[in-house]
Amino acid sequence: MNLLLASRSATRRRMLEAAGVPFALADAALDEEAAKAGLAAAGFEPRDMAEMLAEMKAKSVAGGGALVLGADQVLELDDGAMLSKAGSRAEALAQLRRLSGRTHQLHSAAVIVEHGQRIWGGTESVSLDVRPLGDAFLTFYLDHEYEAVRWNVGSYRVEGMGAQLFDAIRGSHFAVLGLPLLPLLAYLRSRGLLES
Amino acid sequence: MNLLLASRSATRRRMLEAAGVPFALADAALDEEAAKAGLAAAGFEPRDMAEMLAEMKAKSVAGGGALVLGADQVLELDDGAMLSKAGSRAEALAQLRRLSGRTHQLHSAAVIVEHGQRIWGGTESVSLDVRPLGDAFLTFYLDHEYEAVRWNVGSYRVEGMGAQLFDAIRGSHFAVLGLPLLPLLAYLRSRGLLES
Repeated sequence: MNLLLASRSATRRRMLEAAGVPFALADAALDEEAAKAGLAAAGFEPRDMAEMLAEMKAKSVAGGGALVLGADQVLELDDGAMLSKAGSRAEALAQLRRLSGRTHQLHSAAVIVEHGQRIWGGTESVSLDVRPLGDAFLTFYLDHEYEAVRWNVGSYRVEGMGAQLFDAIRGSHFAVLGLPLLPLLAYLRSRGLLES
Repeated sequence: MNLLLASRSATRRRMLEAAGVPFALADAALDEEAAKAGLAAAGFEPRDMAEMLAEMKAKSVAGGGALVLGADQVLELDDGAMLSKAGSRAEALAQLRRLSGRTHQLHSAAVIVEHGQRIWGGTESVSLDVRPLGDAFLTFYLDHEYEAVRWNVGSYRVEGMGAQLFDAIRGSHFAVLGLPLLPLLAYLRSRGLLES
């Protein structure tokens, strides 16, 4: 049996490779922004939205007999607002100003689809306290990090200089990076895709 | 002001570099195994031992006017026993058999010494549930990972194939890697060693 990863995220690809999971890449044929807008209009909560988007990505791939893994991450501010990937440095600055001095959550979902049916799903949420960030720091930070974080939800990498943004991080590091990895590995073991 | 890192750990060095902390390396002139045996004989608990060893490493460096950062990590099994670095593949296998199906804690301590005096310390503990591991899996695992983990407390890297060992990890990822990084960054900011 094969595993197909329906995600363009280089971080997710590296996580699975590092963990020793054999997989191939597949292109999710999903207009993510349109899907997100539709789910938001339909009243989905941020955590449920991550799981639904992961499922939609997986289902958009013709997997044949393979297991198709879809994944998504949603950032929810403490007032319930959601942040997407910043499209520009100016927007990254605006996002970071918004995160400053507040707590937000990252919801990381993974769903596995087989023969067009959802057969497994897992979602993990992490709570992150951002310290108060002044504009002098943010300019310095974006001078160093913008190129590396431009495709990241929230405009940071905790495994890089982004660690300087936080007072505390509560929850799975793997979920911060974009996958509920330990539950996913347990499922893959149960299906014989990993040594057990 | 300068920061000197009194640790031979490549992982700690990489963490500080990735987080954007400027520092230089210093050699701790401490016989770690002898110090550990002495502290154990004196009845130190594992968490206190990590903090005391971090302080002893920092104090063993002649820092001049610099801040000297010492760090240590101690693994405590759920029966209170402590594991050190495995000295050989056979010992790594024995350690992993011992961790199998049980919970252990990693205590990661950092201490900063200035002019020979301890001026800051932080310790974070992480709880890790290891799934039941069969010998077939462990042979496969060590075939792939032994060279990478031979100097690691517990004989695993959670950022590598070691993720396959765990059912759950509760606590700071940075502490798993060997430093209470977020409290440390906060102290370095307060001393003007990082942009704030």
